[in-house]
Amino acid sequence: MTTDSKARCLLVGGGGVGTMAAYNLEAGGKATVTAVLRSNFTAVERDGFNIDSIDHGKIEGWRPTEIRTTIPDIKTDKDSNNKPYDFIIVTTKNTPDIPPSLPSLLAPAVTPGHTSIMLLQNGLNIEKPFFAAFPDHPILSGVSLIGATETSPGKVLHDDRDRMIVGAFPRATSSPDPSPKDHTSASHFVDIYSASGKVVCNLTTNVGLVRWRKLVYNASYNSICAITGLDTTRMRFAGEPLRQLIRPAMWEIIATARAAGYPLPEEEELVEMMVDVDPWTFFKPSMLQDVEKNNFTEFENIVGEPVREAQRLGVPTPTLQVIYALLQTMQWKTKESRGLFTVPSERPVGFVLSK
Amino acid sequence: MTTDSKARCLLVGGGGVGTMAAYNLEAGGKATVTAVLRSNFTAVERDGFNIDSIDHGKIEGWRPTEIRTTIPDIKTDKDSNNKPYDFIIVTTKNTPDIPPSLPSLLAPAVTPGHTSIMLLQNGLNIEKPFFAAFPDHPILSGVSLIGATETSPGKVLHDDRDRMIVGAFPRATSSPDPSPKDHTSASHFVDIYSASGKVVCNLTTNVGLVRWRKLVYNASYNSICAITGLDTTRMRFAGEPLRQLIRPAMWEIIATARAAGYPLPEEEELVEMMVDVDPWTFFKPSMLQDVEKNNFTEFENIVGEPVREAQRLGVPTPTLQVIYALLQTMQWKTKESRGLFTVPSERPVGFVLSK
Repeated sequence: MTTDSKARCLLVGGGGVGTMAAYNLEAGGKATVTAVLRSNFTAVERDGFNIDSIDHGKIEGWRPTEIRTTIPDIKTDKDSNNKPYDFIIVTTKNTPDIPPSLPSLLAPAVTPGHTSIMLLQNGLNIEKPFFAAFPDHPILSGVSLIGATETSPGKVLHDDRDRMIVGAFPRATSSPDPSPKDHTSASHFVDIYSASGKVVCNLTTNVGLVRWRKLVYNASYNSICAITGLDTTRMRFAGEPLRQLIRPAMWEIIATARAAGYPLPEEEELVEMMVDVDPWTFFKPSMLQDVEKNNFTEFENIVGEPVREAQRLGVPTPTLQVIYALLQTMQWKTKESRGLFTVPSERPVGFVLSK
Repeated sequence: MTTDSKARCLLVGGGGVGTMAAYNLEAGGKATVTAVLRSNFTAVERDGFNIDSIDHGKIEGWRPTEIRTTIPDIKTDKDSNNKPYDFIIVTTKNTPDIPPSLPSLLAPAVTPGHTSIMLLQNGLNIEKPFFAAFPDHPILSGVSLIGATETSPGKVLHDDRDRMIVGAFPRATSSPDPSPKDHTSASHFVDIYSASGKVVCNLTTNVGLVRWRKLVYNASYNSICAITGLDTTRMRFAGEPLRQLIRPAMWEIIATARAAGYPLPEEEELVEMMVDVDPWTFFKPSMLQDVEKNNFTEFENIVGEPVREAQRLGVPTPTLQVIYALLQTMQWKTKESRGLFTVPSERPVGFVLSK
């Protein structure tokens, strides 16, 4: 396969997950990757990536086809000879409450009528702003179980295998099915991603089901670990949080998924599997890691959207509603600490309490 | 009034609030105070207390009648010639989930049939273990609005006026009224505490009402600030937490109080007053201060007991239940970090998940 026939991919959002996706795509020989790097650009330009991967082994000094520091404007980009990207793969965190919006950032790199956008991200309803911004484009879902961390700039430890489920987001809320054209794009992505032979990448026609299923873990463990500071081993050893917080949150997700038309098979078994899914390795889910680093959390798509779906459908979610409000309050504090606004030292004249 | 006719008081639990209570009692001339000091004993023995008080002015080198490092055993204590204490005043934090229990600690200093125990502490049902341990003794309630902090060992900044409401806890759950003998003891305490003429100290016959009213603030602001890390100024400036967390929690307390036979007058006005009761001084309520210092929090009496009352009475408290479970989880983590137990690094053989 020549370079010209390879799928051109733009990776936005590096980190462990993005790097391993880029490596796996190029290793398969059916794709070239342009990676937009920020904090690690200098290190990677000088030394390449150094990867220790459970799927691919030890790789030193690896560089994707192209690295750059900004999202290209496809209309004016000379390096690419204005060749369109077939896929934009997004592995950034999803924080729609923090401007600028992802679609506005990606827009210059999207070739009208051509580019598919693959969201390799957590949460519910993440496709909505993309369908609004790019109505003619396939928006693809990637749900990954990979464990990969960038331990220092350009150094990646990949210690839990890459198992990805890919599908096209449906356009109509009335049906879980994707459009045939979008599904073809998802199938193409599975083909280029599976080509390495080193990872498990499956195609689904029901992205919603896959995402609601993942939410059973994320809306409970990920959120509640972030608030309380406990890892998932301690949650289980403490025991009481499972009874009072984790299981109730999981059941609220399951009830909402059912009402939304995504009944999860074997609910009871699913809950008990998810409660004990992590190894006894004191794993800190991503939102807890974010809180500890004073980073923004993905609480809007992980808890906010499920809560809004539940309200729309009349499903009670007493646990998740409080969890959501607490995470929103914590995000507010992070915004302040990062200078997005300041709190006046004196009570503002005419200050009216929010009702 | 001679020393002999003065009320003999034993203060357990120093800090800003305890020190100001001790000073005010001795300033009034109707009481002598034996203070049990721990971390500040050496500093106070050498230099006395240095106090900057909004009620009493600047006082340097003040010492109570007696200071000591342990709770005396009244049967064997030679310093006191075995003279009984009229009042034991408890200003420690109330953490019934952390052994040893307060009644077991105080028992040696209690003279049967004589000593009254004044609990100058937060929360609901704090008298229950004391009535169980000392059934013949008046158990008194002190609810204080004082702002006083020990800024370094022996140095106290008292910057918000001491306004205390005192009453005897009722013995029967069927009536809010105290027994006449217990009420007489409460009245005696008000007399000796008011004698300085510098503080406001009122007597109540309805301790329950006073405590439920204080819970409107403590179960909401105190708890939710502890979880989210926001002070009460930021809570108001953020606005949204008032709507989603603070007011709902306040209304759950009010509904539970009503069902428990303590209807709070003018509920709507009370909530709006409590929401905005703090000055714009970025005040961190006590539980947030405790969390920041990795101290245990008083969550059992501030949230746990109201939630249990609500469950007993069939009052829904969806917000407080989640808040309670989160604070319980955070306390578990504090217990671990203080060495009360260890979490095994390997999954224990035969480990069964809590249901």
